[in-house]
Amino acid sequence: MTEATVIGGSGYTGGELLRLIVGHPQLELGQVTSRSKERRTVTSVHPNLRGATDARFVHPDDLEDTDLLFTATPHGYTMEEMPRLRDHADTVVDLSGDFRLDDPAGYDEWYDEHPNPGMLDEAVYGVPELYRDEIRDASLIAAAGCNATASILALHPLVESGIVDDEDDVVLDVKASSSAGGASANTASHHAERSRVVRPYAPTSHRHQAEIEQETGLDVNMTVHAIEMVRGIAATAHALVEGVEEKELWKAYRGAYGDEPFVRVAKSRRGVYRYPEPKVVEGTNYCDVGFEVSDDRVVAFSAVDNMMKGSAGMAVQSANIALGYDEGAGLGFNGMHPV
Amino acid sequence: MTEATVIGGSGYTGGELLRLIVGHPQLELGQVTSRSKERRTVTSVHPNLRGATDARFVHPDDLEDTDLLFTATPHGYTMEEMPRLRDHADTVVDLSGDFRLDDPAGYDEWYDEHPNPGMLDEAVYGVPELYRDEIRDASLIAAAGCNATASILALHPLVESGIVDDEDDVVLDVKASSSAGGASANTASHHAERSRVVRPYAPTSHRHQAEIEQETGLDVNMTVHAIEMVRGIAATAHALVEGVEEKELWKAYRGAYGDEPFVRVAKSRRGVYRYPEPKVVEGTNYCDVGFEVSDDRVVAFSAVDNMMKGSAGMAVQSANIALGYDEGAGLGFNGMHPV
Amino acid sequence: MTEATVIGGSGYTGGELLRLIVGHPQLELGQVTSRSKERRTVTSVHPNLRGATDARFVHPDDLEDTDLLFTATPHGYTMEEMPRLRDHADTVVDLSGDFRLDDPAGYDEWYDEHPNPGMLDEAVYGVPELYRDEIRDASLIAAAGCNATASILALHPLVESGIVDDEDDVVLDVKASSSAGGASANTASHHAERSRVVRPYAPTSHRHQAEIEQETGLDVNMTVHAIEMVRGIAATAHALVEGVEEKELWKAYRGAYGDEPFVRVAKSRRGVYRYPEPKVVEGTNYCDVGFEVSDDRVVAFSAVDNMMKGSAGMAVQSANIALGYDEGAGLGFNGMHPV
Amino acid sequence: MTEATVIGGSGYTGGELLRLIVGHPQLELGQVTSRSKERRTVTSVHPNLRGATDARFVHPDDLEDTDLLFTATPHGYTMEEMPRLRDHADTVVDLSGDFRLDDPAGYDEWYDEHPNPGMLDEAVYGVPELYRDEIRDASLIAAAGCNATASILALHPLVESGIVDDEDDVVLDVKASSSAGGASANTASHHAERSRVVRPYAPTSHRHQAEIEQETGLDVNMTVHAIEMVRGIAATAHALVEGVEEKELWKAYRGAYGDEPFVRVAKSRRGVYRYPEPKVVEGTNYCDVGFEVSDDRVVAFSAVDNMMKGSAGMAVQSANIALGYDEGAGLGFNGMHPV
Repeated sequence: MTEATVIGGSGYTGGELLRLIVGHPQLELGQVTSRSKERRTVTSVHPNLRGATDARFVHPDDLEDTDLLFTATPHGYTMEEMPRLRDHADTVVDLSGDFRLDDPAGYDEWYDEHPNPGMLDEAVYGVPELYRDEIRDASLIAAAGCNATASILALHPLVESGIVDDEDDVVLDVKASSSAGGASANTASHHAERSRVVRPYAPTSHRHQAEIEQETGLDVNMTVHAIEMVRGIAATAHALVEGVEEKELWKAYRGAYGDEPFVRVAKSRRGVYRYPEPKVVEGTNYCDVGFEVSDDRVVAFSAVDNMMKGSAGMAVQSANIALGYDEGAGLGFNGMHPV
Repeated sequence: MTEATVIGGSGYTGGELLRLIVGHPQLELGQVTSRSKERRTVTSVHPNLRGATDARFVHPDDLEDTDLLFTATPHGYTMEEMPRLRDHADTVVDLSGDFRLDDPAGYDEWYDEHPNPGMLDEAVYGVPELYRDEIRDASLIAAAGCNATASILALHPLVESGIVDDEDDVVLDVKASSSAGGASANTASHHAERSRVVRPYAPTSHRHQAEIEQETGLDVNMTVHAIEMVRGIAATAHALVEGVEEKELWKAYRGAYGDEPFVRVAKSRRGVYRYPEPKVVEGTNYCDVGFEVSDDRVVAFSAVDNMMKGSAGMAVQSANIALGYDEGAGLGFNGMHPV
Repeated sequence: MTEATVIGGSGYTGGELLRLIVGHPQLELGQVTSRSKERRTVTSVHPNLRGATDARFVHPDDLEDTDLLFTATPHGYTMEEMPRLRDHADTVVDLSGDFRLDDPAGYDEWYDEHPNPGMLDEAVYGVPELYRDEIRDASLIAAAGCNATASILALHPLVESGIVDDEDDVVLDVKASSSAGGASANTASHHAERSRVVRPYAPTSHRHQAEIEQETGLDVNMTVHAIEMVRGIAATAHALVEGVEEKELWKAYRGAYGDEPFVRVAKSRRGVYRYPEPKVVEGTNYCDVGFEVSDDRVVAFSAVDNMMKGSAGMAVQSANIALGYDEGAGLGFNGMHPV
Repeated sequence: MTEATVIGGSGYTGGELLRLIVGHPQLELGQVTSRSKERRTVTSVHPNLRGATDARFVHPDDLEDTDLLFTATPHGYTMEEMPRLRDHADTVVDLSGDFRLDDPAGYDEWYDEHPNPGMLDEAVYGVPELYRDEIRDASLIAAAGCNATASILALHPLVESGIVDDEDDVVLDVKASSSAGGASANTASHHAERSRVVRPYAPTSHRHQAEIEQETGLDVNMTVHAIEMVRGIAATAHALVEGVEEKELWKAYRGAYGDEPFVRVAKSRRGVYRYPEPKVVEGTNYCDVGFEVSDDRVVAFSAVDNMMKGSAGMAVQSANIALGYDEGAGLGFNGMHPV
């Protein structure tokens, strides 16, 4: 058994990691840190884990050595602390944005100046569909952002196949859930204000754009709307390209994902669920992708659970690869219908 | 025109008062106070009023004399400040709980010791269906609590007709919306936590019970569940009485409410909407009531919009009566279908 | 008083017309037809109208002469029946798609061959912001489609000001509510299937595109997603144009809508509601529009209630203009906060 | 491996069985029948199973012998067909109501006259917490109704401990989700009508009352409200008993469920989740139970996922017991937070 410790266990992605660890056949839970919830039980925050663990939060200063360390902290923390954290574990999977970009200049633009830019090279971008081989040898894995995961996996086959390139206009209209905003309450997240919204919260750009452009090589025009949904990200990529045929698209998507355990091409001619939908993948590690084409546009759709394939699930998938376990270990939940 | 000022205009019931005042044929808006939002526009908080008013919040210390004063403040404020506030206006309608109970002892039990107990006698309980005549002459009106309004209007015909009396067991299972908890954000009200709940938040009693028992003379066993709803209160009263016939109930409800402009008996044999439902009265000043009977139980249902008939709407209805205006002035919205 | 009759009164836009008519100071309700609900009370279908009307549905074959006729029927009906219907009333406002397009060829492409193409010229497209003068003299008004209204009003100032023209790429990503699909139940609309969806239902084109292109002169790349919402349409128009400055946009939007009673520019630097949101305009006749700009893109947002500004509200606004009444008569509801 | 066949696999509980079977370590999927969906893929109806199975529906007339047969059919079907069905499998778990009542007279009252009353004695009521030993030897198991499961598990410790008996008044106010109404679309289930309801749909009694009274020995006053929720049942039992102390209740609930793998006592002094809530158990086989007490009332709360502990999950739990497998096999999903 591999011991796995979670830094930042009282947040949403931290809690999801706990759920996955306690249900994982090869992992056992080490420490769970939380500055604000020290000494309280994990289940007082994450009620779904009642009966599954009696762990309590410890202060991050009391961190002990472990095998596998997941960091689920706000942006800015691991950027500073990573050198120290890596002394505690052979493998670190960081769920924040602090090690996702290759180029330190990206941090100046989208986040803050990076205090450990030399370590960016060592970090592998934790999207197995793109970097499975690199993840196998990695000791520092940067799990992708939730909007980025959905967007990249929708666009990747189009780029790989040459259907879309950096000369083409791409509009990315992302629909995001409330949990993607984290666990801190504020007026905008107050239920009476946040319910039933279609709220443009990143009208002309979003930090995750930096990752998307890095990984796809495209310039994307990204907008994020908050909508009524607790979990889930739906990305719609509109690529303004002419004369593409549906069979090329099938070839591109099947080629890219035919062997992937956690990407499904969801495209049907009939039935209620003809394209990807976030609720279908809720609680699962799947990214569903689909597409449609007209004379002068390819529209690609994708859906992930932002807590799962969009963060904690992908982090465990990457850890499984790095540790040599079955890639799907602990990630077997199939999702529900109806839901 | 009568000038109406709102104390506590940045909260939810305060905002609803503003909406009703700016749409009222005989009222014009005076001041709107808010301690925390001073100098900001009203529409920066209540976006529905864009185009309807360019008012800005003023500090409560800057209160000027007016004709009609609505106080939409947290419990405890008017209890202290009412003597001073009444110097500013001939008519005060208080939306807090501070003047609802007749007996000062009730404040010791459910709130805090009342600093102005002598003024409790002067306050009229602002439910027109019970106290229309008293409201006509009132200078201090205490609008009822939202759960109380729904519960009292469901039970009132049963008590008036003698079908239920204080020897009978009555269980009151109330389903409440998130706006009933006010505008302050906290972890429990965070969208990701509050969404889709069925959450027992007042499992064995609720402050509004004091009003309900005062007005009905019954001992009620009250439980409030928070459910997925932004506006609305649904009260289900289970009265354990034997041998009641449906026609007695029709007589009781029609007798009580046949002439009431804002209480509708909602009971149909077929169709989708056979009983009261909160979404049907959303935005309106209606309380819909309905009932069903079995051998040993009468079940009474009611639905109100907690912002309207449950607070601001009822407050305006009472003010209309007190000022001699048409009782329904400014309260003409019929509600929507579907919604 | 003008008598107004509604054909197709058991549907959703028909029901909304009834609500507006019974609350209108110059209109009185004539007949309400419904083939399937003949002789049932209107309130058995539209429970919000309890107490407001005791009308019953009549069979469409029993249509009598009236002053003002609203047709809220499925596409295809008035196309055939309009000559006969116009014999019954001086003014007809059609809420279907049957008279919206100027060019009969549009019907061949998007609907069916039009049996009365000669009448298309007589119909005025019922968007007062574009055709107020023409509506004044019109006897046949074709109220716009809900997605089209939202899209056109978002794009109109960009086109008028020359910021966007037909050489520019425009992606239109529309988020739609369930009521926009009408009142007929089917598996896709079953609550357990339809709830919480982000469902691409018009992935690469939508009928309303024909109206949008006709009225804006643009080629638009339109996609419609069904999302969790009962009422409301949110349109996001991504126009790929470079070098536009924010002040030009302010000028364009204020110029277009500064005097419009039912279009509000919703754009704030702070607060929760910084852009248009459908829930803010629920139940109202407002279209809120807003925008944001980056180096190479203008993003325009709009929100309407599809039952109101997107159909019945706009139809009444147009009828008010045609009949010489105050343009906002019967349309005074300001919307709610929170909701 | 045990082969498991599902009759009625296109419905909601049928689909949930499929999900559990394909994820079960000792079960393999046999046939899946559906009259209306014959030859279509299972995933065309249940999109969550994409990648997990390529099974197709077969006509029920083509049923072959199998090891374990689950019947997820509308009430009335197995009542007639059970003798024939039992010829096909050694163990049958029936998810309909047709074999839940011991007394044929109950069928006359709540369903229809039972054509195979002699078989009622052979059926074991499939609630492991009450009948684990009987299930071990059973060849016919009648899984309980969803409302019944939640209600019985809330009440059972009160009855066992003698805190509540058949002289006491018990009001059962159940809040139910839309999936509990099945997969067939109708006007009442249409999204625009069903959304955000608090709808009394079984105002004074419900079929499941028969099971509850049979298993608890109490007379219950049951009311079911449909509320905004796709999955889940929340039962609130108000028992009007005086002088009960909290420690007695702890003893009763811990005594009843201390060793139960799928019942958790959810009761905390602080935190957001202090009592059972359906969303916490969504997708899981847990029934969470909790309670609170006042001078003259015990209020017991319970929450289940109606597809899981309320039907398919419980059916698999019972099958595991009957077949000698680990009782929790295939039921390991812990649920999500937030959700």
